Amino acid sequence: MDVTADGTENFVIGVDYGTLSGRAVVVRVRDGKELGSAVFDYPHAVLTDALPTDTAGADAARLPGDWALQVPNDYRDVLRHAVPAAVADAGIDPAAVVGIATDFTACTMVPVKADGTPLNELPEFANSPHAYVKLWRHHAAQPQADRINALGRERGEEWLPRYGGLISSEWEFAKGLQLLEEAPEVYAAMDRWVEAADWIVWQLCGNYVRNACTAGYKGIYQDGKYPSDDYLAALNPGFRDFVSSKLEHTIGRLGDAAGYLTAEAAAWTGLPEGIAVAVGNVDAHVTAPAARAVEPGQLVAIMGTSTCHVMNGAELSEVPGMCGAVDGGIVDGLWGYEAGQSGVGDIFGWFTGNGVPPEYHDAAARRGLGIHEYLTELASRQAIGAHGLIALDWHSGNRSVLVDHELSGVIVGQTLATRPEDTYRALLEATAFGTRTIVDAFRDSGVPVREFTVAGGLIKNQLLMQIYADVTGLPLSTIGSTQGPALGAAIHAAVAAGHYPDVRSAAVAMGAEPGAVYTPIPENVAAYEELFREYRTLHDYFGRGANEVMHRLKAIQRRAAAPLLSAGVPA
Amino acid sequence: MDVTADGTENFVIGVDYGTLSGRAVVVRVRDGKELGSAVFDYPHAVLTDALPTDTAGADAARLPGDWALQVPNDYRDVLRHAVPAAVADAGIDPAAVVGIATDFTACTMVPVKADGTPLNELPEFANSPHAYVKLWRHHAAQPQADRINALGRERGEEWLPRYGGLISSEWEFAKGLQLLEEAPEVYAAMDRWVEAADWIVWQLCGNYVRNACTAGYKGIYQDGKYPSDDYLAALNPGFRDFVSSKLEHTIGRLGDAAGYLTAEAAAWTGLPEGIAVAVGNVDAHVTAPAARAVEPGQLVAIMGTSTCHVMNGAELSEVPGMCGAVDGGIVDGLWGYEAGQSGVGDIFGWFTGNGVPPEYHDAAARRGLGIHEYLTELASRQAIGAHGLIALDWHSGNRSVLVDHELSGVIVGQTLATRPEDTYRALLEATAFGTRTIVDAFRDSGVPVREFTVAGGLIKNQLLMQIYADVTGLPLSTIGSTQGPALGAAIHAAVAAGHYPDVRSAAVAMGAEPGAVYTPIPENVAAYEELFREYRTLHDYFGRGANEVMHRLKAIQRRAAAPLLSAGVPA
Repeated sequence: MDVTADGTENFVIGVDYGTLSGRAVVVRVRDGKELGSAVFDYPHAVLTDALPTDTAGADAARLPGDWALQVPNDYRDVLRHAVPAAVADAGIDPAAVVGIATDFTACTMVPVKADGTPLNELPEFANSPHAYVKLWRHHAAQPQADRINALGRERGEEWLPRYGGLISSEWEFAKGLQLLEEAPEVYAAMDRWVEAADWIVWQLCGNYVRNACTAGYKGIYQDGKYPSDDYLAALNPGFRDFVSSKLEHTIGRLGDAAGYLTAEAAAWTGLPEGIAVAVGNVDAHVTAPAARAVEPGQLVAIMGTSTCHVMNGAELSEVPGMCGAVDGGIVDGLWGYEAGQSGVGDIFGWFTGNGVPPEYHDAAARRGLGIHEYLTELASRQAIGAHGLIALDWHSGNRSVLVDHELSGVIVGQTLATRPEDTYRALLEATAFGTRTIVDAFRDSGVPVREFTVAGGLIKNQLLMQIYADVTGLPLSTIGSTQGPALGAAIHAAVAAGHYPDVRSAAVAMGAEPGAVYTPIPENVAAYEELFREYRTLHDYFGRGANEVMHRLKAIQRRAAAPLLSAGVPA
Repeated sequence: MDVTADGTENFVIGVDYGTLSGRAVVVRVRDGKELGSAVFDYPHAVLTDALPTDTAGADAARLPGDWALQVPNDYRDVLRHAVPAAVADAGIDPAAVVGIATDFTACTMVPVKADGTPLNELPEFANSPHAYVKLWRHHAAQPQADRINALGRERGEEWLPRYGGLISSEWEFAKGLQLLEEAPEVYAAMDRWVEAADWIVWQLCGNYVRNACTAGYKGIYQDGKYPSDDYLAALNPGFRDFVSSKLEHTIGRLGDAAGYLTAEAAAWTGLPEGIAVAVGNVDAHVTAPAARAVEPGQLVAIMGTSTCHVMNGAELSEVPGMCGAVDGGIVDGLWGYEAGQSGVGDIFGWFTGNGVPPEYHDAAARRGLGIHEYLTELASRQAIGAHGLIALDWHSGNRSVLVDHELSGVIVGQTLATRPEDTYRALLEATAFGTRTIVDAFRDSGVPVREFTVAGGLIKNQLLMQIYADVTGLPLSTIGSTQGPALGAAIHAAVAAGHYPDVRSAAVAMGAEPGAVYTPIPENVAAYEELFREYRTLHDYFGRGANEVMHRLKAIQRRAAAPLLSAGVPA
């Protein structure tokens, strides 16, 4: 059934929209083989300092700190450039492509008119920052998020525990409230507040469908409803009809077709008009089927600058410290759990950038190694515990299970004999202990983890992978594909095109073979068990209220920095 | 009275014996003016790997780890070279020199025959490591020290609290017991177990006198007696008569003459035969009169790789965590208190050597600055608390007030935005908090600190000095002399020669003017008070038993390193 009428193979396109670029991959429907790919960098990348003059004009507005915007036409450009290039790279006949699907960063939000036109494309709003896309890492809505959480707790809102008790400043409601309060004229002109994941699908097929994944994880859509109008009015009277007038829309199940490729989008991409366009999806979540890990108990960690953990469960359990539990949030018919560590590769990168002396950089260069490779090589020669260190991996806060972004890093045990590779290894281990804490939280809530699959850029570090296997005590396999999210999107395209009955069966046929398998080594497991106990003691001491020093240090820091900031920013 | 019969001035010589060299200074008796100086490096420096072939022969013995020996003739060479060179540098007539005094590292021990001949100078012992000088930082007697302390606690020995409950492996009894147990033939041949501080005086004047300072601080001489024979026999039956047969000897008061320059020593030094030779002394303690800080309540900190704190009190109080309280231990007639921080400059040096990236070294070099100067400049631009960090300064253990060398460093609060200058400043502050803890312990025991004088290499860091003033809330002055110990020795020489009635009055006339004065800034004091509370909470949590993670990490580390060590050392 995977062969067209004339006997040729069928293909699907997966497009992965990252923070700085979009990547298109051509995949064979029959077996998931990746035949070609192409990357297109967003011309405007991420806007953090000012709007671009080519869209906003010569007087382009400056942006305050913590802002991160994007230009939506950059996403269309990926369709225009990366898709045809990937098809050419694969050397296939575009007529044999039967479906296309996308995955996107989230929560990334586009304010649009009723026809899907982004507000920044209207001349009257071209120089209004709030008319642009708010990227996932736009963090300027923290005051709004704080109010959302405080009021939610105060009113005992039942949706709050589904998100570990904390709605992020990155998500739909916080960003929407910021828009209302800071740019009411833009808010008034906005007909829909749309996830970029859904906006790009709308561009492809002409239909607006909210995908079940972001609606649940980022849009507080639980048990068929959103936070109530009363709650919203208590946040701000003008926000009372936010859900009904701006947000609420048809929910599409993951793997369903949202619609079919329009003539316009067919012209952009060179693909056949009318092929299936899958419901939108999110980069981390779509990786689960690419890793053939969509069954209950199969945990997938996408490890890069941060780590996102996704896992399906047959039933709803409220697992403390999750980012969210969503019905059909990863695959339709199962409860999708998401957890995360807000700093992983970022912490290693911070250390190599700020804490490694010249001799090490020189030695690495002489060996033709990157500094991470060199430190990893040195660290791999150590017996477990020989460095005498325990670190807490909270340099970027703690997402799961403490859900506290005011936490910070700790290292205990440094002496005059401590070398950079010791600290580096302690930081690698700290992130593994962080994952172990999440695995334990699942288990303690009756959602046991049986298998552990890892995707993302960090899988190339073999020492790190073995540490994760030893610390969790779980067999660990890495994903065999280097383009997990795009492959995952392609799997959704094949389902949307009707070539598989559902994502679970498509994952079996099309998901990547494991790249490598790491088996826990019993003596390492025992050695790490001892160190993990120390981690947990410190984790609970610093993270659960016994000593709120980290919160106090952040408060002192803000107070101390305030005079400098106000001096540096013109009134 | 400071003028000789023929109307010329009188002079004294102070000789400071450090770890790697000896420094002689010529000082005018009338006013303490430093007229000339010279340094002589010990030809054999510190022996850590092997005995030298020029003394031990071609088959010179290898040394185990933790050993640190010296060659006593190197100390005589300082007299032969540095003293005449200093006199020449001063351009004075050596006939106008009326006295000489020395200060020494401690506890540095020389095993000698009854006439003062070091055992290593006997042909039969020339290749026996135990026949050489055991330098203060010879740490191989730790097992003996552990037994000394355990037995002392078990028997409730009353001398133990005078030393904060812990006798160091560096001191006379631990090193002596190691000698007995590892080289009984050397021990049997040894007639006296002599502090190098006293041995060099013996070389100068032909008399053996034990100085009150090292006898008290390093020799457990309290209230006119040593640990009992019964106690010693319980340590090791062969150690029963250690005090009576090897150690006990006339005690000399600081500032008294131990004797008069012999003809032989006059020939070495070019000084007049028969001039006064002062009782021996210790580098840190002798700095107090050089800084004019010998009155009760005047705390002197000698800040270098580590910090030694000395202060006089009118009465004995048992201050928790002191290194020792000794009657006449700094100046005769007062109780001398000693405390310490085992890592200070060493911690800063460890950080710059191991934790600062190439860009910083390059930027410092472009500016023509050392890396410490450059980091200090960057750190000095910060408001207090702006870095968001708290560190514990235990990278080399904690001497006072916790007396626990199994403790280690901590840093709390690092984020992805933490830069090297942030961590550097946090480490500077941590050592200031450590000193504050000692000042508070004095105060809480009824020995208040009124003034704070700092000597040693770190006084050149103005940011550090202001931090210490702000953290302690005490007016801080730095010593005006760059050769504090040698000046302090010279003051003792003037007293020994009868030109002043005692060290306290000589200090007034000859001590150095303050080099700089740092006044606590009230808003800084308040800001640091808040951070110090955080330091104390962490100090007590990690240091007083609430979480013994540091001890456990050290145990794990030793266990983990053991297989590697045994593999690396031939049987």
